[in-house]
Amino acid sequence: MNIVSYQPTPEELSYTFGGRAAVGKVRPGTIMELYTEDCFGGRVRSVADLPSRVCEFPYLNPVTGPFHVEGAEPGDTLALHFVSITPARDWAVSTTFPHFGALTGTHTTAMLQPPLEERVWRYDLDLERGVAVYHARNSDFSVELPLDPMHGTVGVAPAANESRMTITPDAHGGNMDTPELRAGVTVYLGVNVEGAMFSIGDGHARQGHGEVCGTAVEAAMRTVVAVELIKRVPTPWPRLEDDLYLMSTGSARPLEDAYRISQHDLVTWSAALTGLDELDAYQLVSQAGEAPVGNVCDTNYTMVAKVPKAYLGGPSVYESAHTRLRDLAERYASGR
Amino acid sequence: MNIVSYQPTPEELSYTFGGRAAVGKVRPGTIMELYTEDCFGGRVRSVADLPSRVCEFPYLNPVTGPFHVEGAEPGDTLALHFVSITPARDWAVSTTFPHFGALTGTHTTAMLQPPLEERVWRYDLDLERGVAVYHARNSDFSVELPLDPMHGTVGVAPAANESRMTITPDAHGGNMDTPELRAGVTVYLGVNVEGAMFSIGDGHARQGHGEVCGTAVEAAMRTVVAVELIKRVPTPWPRLEDDLYLMSTGSARPLEDAYRISQHDLVTWSAALTGLDELDAYQLVSQAGEAPVGNVCDTNYTMVAKVPKAYLGGPSVYESAHTRLRDLAERYASGR
Amino acid sequence: MNIVSYQPTPEELSYTFGGRAAVGKVRPGTIMELYTEDCFGGRVRSVADLPSRVCEFPYLNPVTGPFHVEGAEPGDTLALHFVSITPARDWAVSTTFPHFGALTGTHTTAMLQPPLEERVWRYDLDLERGVAVYHARNSDFSVELPLDPMHGTVGVAPAANESRMTITPDAHGGNMDTPELRAGVTVYLGVNVEGAMFSIGDGHARQGHGEVCGTAVEAAMRTVVAVELIKRVPTPWPRLEDDLYLMSTGSARPLEDAYRISQHDLVTWSAALTGLDELDAYQLVSQAGEAPVGNVCDTNYTMVAKVPKAYLGGPSVYESAHTRLRDLAERYASGR
Amino acid sequence: MNIVSYQPTPEELSYTFGGRAAVGKVRPGTIMELYTEDCFGGRVRSVADLPSRVCEFPYLNPVTGPFHVEGAEPGDTLALHFVSITPARDWAVSTTFPHFGALTGTHTTAMLQPPLEERVWRYDLDLERGVAVYHARNSDFSVELPLDPMHGTVGVAPAANESRMTITPDAHGGNMDTPELRAGVTVYLGVNVEGAMFSIGDGHARQGHGEVCGTAVEAAMRTVVAVELIKRVPTPWPRLEDDLYLMSTGSARPLEDAYRISQHDLVTWSAALTGLDELDAYQLVSQAGEAPVGNVCDTNYTMVAKVPKAYLGGPSVYESAHTRLRDLAERYASGR
Repeated sequence: MNIVSYQPTPEELSYTFGGRAAVGKVRPGTIMELYTEDCFGGRVRSVADLPSRVCEFPYLNPVTGPFHVEGAEPGDTLALHFVSITPARDWAVSTTFPHFGALTGTHTTAMLQPPLEERVWRYDLDLERGVAVYHARNSDFSVELPLDPMHGTVGVAPAANESRMTITPDAHGGNMDTPELRAGVTVYLGVNVEGAMFSIGDGHARQGHGEVCGTAVEAAMRTVVAVELIKRVPTPWPRLEDDLYLMSTGSARPLEDAYRISQHDLVTWSAALTGLDELDAYQLVSQAGEAPVGNVCDTNYTMVAKVPKAYLGGPSVYESAHTRLRDLAERYASGR
Repeated sequence: MNIVSYQPTPEELSYTFGGRAAVGKVRPGTIMELYTEDCFGGRVRSVADLPSRVCEFPYLNPVTGPFHVEGAEPGDTLALHFVSITPARDWAVSTTFPHFGALTGTHTTAMLQPPLEERVWRYDLDLERGVAVYHARNSDFSVELPLDPMHGTVGVAPAANESRMTITPDAHGGNMDTPELRAGVTVYLGVNVEGAMFSIGDGHARQGHGEVCGTAVEAAMRTVVAVELIKRVPTPWPRLEDDLYLMSTGSARPLEDAYRISQHDLVTWSAALTGLDELDAYQLVSQAGEAPVGNVCDTNYTMVAKVPKAYLGGPSVYESAHTRLRDLAERYASGR
Repeated sequence: MNIVSYQPTPEELSYTFGGRAAVGKVRPGTIMELYTEDCFGGRVRSVADLPSRVCEFPYLNPVTGPFHVEGAEPGDTLALHFVSITPARDWAVSTTFPHFGALTGTHTTAMLQPPLEERVWRYDLDLERGVAVYHARNSDFSVELPLDPMHGTVGVAPAANESRMTITPDAHGGNMDTPELRAGVTVYLGVNVEGAMFSIGDGHARQGHGEVCGTAVEAAMRTVVAVELIKRVPTPWPRLEDDLYLMSTGSARPLEDAYRISQHDLVTWSAALTGLDELDAYQLVSQAGEAPVGNVCDTNYTMVAKVPKAYLGGPSVYESAHTRLRDLAERYASGR
Repeated sequence: MNIVSYQPTPEELSYTFGGRAAVGKVRPGTIMELYTEDCFGGRVRSVADLPSRVCEFPYLNPVTGPFHVEGAEPGDTLALHFVSITPARDWAVSTTFPHFGALTGTHTTAMLQPPLEERVWRYDLDLERGVAVYHARNSDFSVELPLDPMHGTVGVAPAANESRMTITPDAHGGNMDTPELRAGVTVYLGVNVEGAMFSIGDGHARQGHGEVCGTAVEAAMRTVVAVELIKRVPTPWPRLEDDLYLMSTGSARPLEDAYRISQHDLVTWSAALTGLDELDAYQLVSQAGEAPVGNVCDTNYTMVAKVPKAYLGGPSVYESAHTRLRDLAERYASGR
């Protein structure tokens, strides 16, 4: 078993997808043990650390990578199976940020109102008990919320020689901020450049639907990823698979366009997998599908469309990559 | 126990919220056994019954009502507890409809492309086994989906002397098309006119998230509703409560505004219930909240924001109306 | 010549389209001399009169009407030619209003930020010199802007038994708030109910594009309208015609849908008038068309699509109603 | 006078803003005589040349540049004065393109309907008479439209190490597609990287508002630009100035956000220029401003907000760069 461990130095962190040289090369079939910093680069450590003071644009939302996958070429699909996602510290933070979030004027939803107060919340993480503890800032209210670790950001270099801030989700992946991207899930990303050049980051100890205030329970992570490559199979938008579901994503504005992209991809994908014509697949997804919100705060909004594989007759997708990667993950786990 | 049964004649069906005389009067505390027709008025019975031929605009999406609730005045809140929702026939239908649905040009998302094919699917409903059976039209593919009966449409007369087509969801309720509106749920609606004038309709044997093709598994229903009135407590947008969750709704376009309305209401409501200031409540809902999509196909789109009551310290809302109505429902059920 | 004069008492003002009995009957061919109050019902008279204090929801944006047009039936088109629009007082007002306008959170673009300051500006109107004088509130800056009187609101009773607040623009007309609706223009409105039931109101001494702060230079008006009826010719969305241009309107959210509706109507209308196929008309409108913004602040946003008649070969539309009404207007003017 | 002439070879054309080495260096004060190819790279020459066949993604919308401006640093503003824009050939083309344009489903407004027919129109350009001649494809209808040459695309390298397809407009400029960008106009662009790295392209012989079908009357251009640099004056979004107007742009989705950005920038800029507080400036722009639509078809939509300088007291902006550049242009013109 090929296992690679990597923890970036601060200088090695990346802030774009595309436009940067690889920090390493990996072969398909590799298990990668990665460290990712939180979206603030670890600089917000107490409620006194206002992000607008301790962070500097555009050095936000750092990702670990990019990694060059050997043999990956445009038209292929990269499969990343998230074996485990484990908070690296016993605390995490969340904040408001001036003119960022769904319930405030922003850079693009431009308004004359002054920004909301910038405020930091520090969560205690208890991995054994599986909880993140919320503490109100202006009262003694406190509550335990279940941990549900995930990565907000995963992606490859974009097409068309673009280079995009890590905060933007689009067809190349990026900052989709969907809680569906948890351990046990395989992410499929269409390869746009030689080597695919993937990165991951923005770990969340947990996140509500839509990340309405603009940030989740932001945590540095120790994450294990299994890497696979499916040759000559393209993927138009990031897709996810777990043991029960197939999922399509869409990232755009307005939010209905993110919904449309994800549903359109799930309908046409389901048609291809089942032999249904597009209208029959449209009907089936309409009644059987789910649509968990990713984010409604980033530069593009993200929606996920998902359907139980059982309702499609349990098709095998991407040459059974998910099953193979899950098996690899189990061998890795048992070998530790 | 005060029990009222009502099945409308075709002439008694309503097609607006507001602008119509009551079909009956009910006292708070009443159990109502209601029959509701499906959104096609029962006219689409086979795959040959194209809705554009057998239905006539604006006689779509009929509702049962309006009912005048004794003592209801503007500024009060009407509570409707859905005791049971049972398909009235052993079949249901779903269709595409020209220029309606999320993945087609529409009346407002106006496009020059010709409409999608109009097609009808007929589902077999098996109440004992709890399944709706999908049959593809252009292949022999078939699959059983779990029944999850709900009402797409519930509402009161709007404010400001408005009268709105039943197909439109807004602050008065209407065609929200959320699967969250199932049996066991209490819906809270702000009263705008004397008597509240509520109606319900548009039963779905089940529905995917967003009702992407424009219709669900449309079914006539036998539905039992328990009615309560909370005096001098206003409600800005329809809210829902079940044993575990508080929910706010928002209906608007674009979809992010439906999201904003629902999240804003849940944040400010949570603040009022917990004593948290708005920013602390914003943070808590951001990490603990869910955001199930209602519809992305109607004249307004609908989003739901929900949070477990346990995370708010288990507050009692609306004078514990949900608990009282659930108790009433149990007495009703045991008396049958 | 049939001339009718009408000035409503405060009790006769209307606040909806639909749902109200006619205040008068008119025959096609009539000249109507009408008085319209401003959108505040004349209650905001000085900078101390904050609208949230002196006005009461839903008694905003009053209109004069509805008028029953003899012989009008669903499927016909009502033509209203604006002969003249003259401010009735030597002052006008504009204001911000809490949570209303394009650069603030609103009822639907719900935000946690506090509202902008509510402030009133009083303009001096000089009809002889044709100017409205702006005075800054917090400095001695002052500037003369040209008068360009228009009506923000004109419409008929909606279809489908709906009744809509006058503040909402939709297919029935309503609060479109386009500066294109000035004297010399004929407005075409599809008739939905017997008698058409048209009303007008919301005079503006002038307005910027989009009415960005939420209100224009709001003025009571003395307005002369010539009424015509085109039998058995339907109109899907309000259209306008002046001596040089044909115009289509669209009112919806998001703003691109208002744009799509208006452009779609102009393209299909141009195709019908010229014999071009839809794609050739799409191309011609794409290069020759203009798209003045109406409002970006109301419950629906409004866009106008316009094209010079000359580029379409100078077609006659609606049985030359505009030409006939302009002639009638000239006879009226010369008779005074 | 420093005059530079440059015509790119096909290999020198650029398809992104950012991520490319300069094709040349220029000093502030230089007059540049540039050749720009049309958005199809000159490959669509007859109605038989369907762009989806003769063009290859992402080699669309080529720009001439980037040029390194000596001394330009982040925080400065680049001023480009368009001295003249002259079609380089006696023909131009326009097309529909599958899943592109405002009245069709697209990549992001994803729909299941098949695309509109792909069709090419070839315009005759007559520079002497100042007309572009439209010829219908499916009839013998023909009409002369006035030439109004402009550039759809102008911009600098983006911030945050991004590289963006030339088809995307954003804060760095790009494919704004506004007819306001004609000869006689000065464009102000905030500098994000050393040397600014500006490019221009996408000439239009004329364009309707919104470029509704997705393309304008696309023409290769001979364009003369005068270059100036304003040190230590930042510019948040592209701004334009001509002899009469100040203009701000906004590019985003949905379209109301493009409107909000442009109006917000014009309001805050006007406040800074006049000494009005923001609310007084908001009021003045609301009544005096115009809002010409740029594009409603690109990956971001573009709106322009403009106000007559006279209404602001005729302020001097950007150290009177427009006046100085216009003078330079006149000296250049008289020297020829």
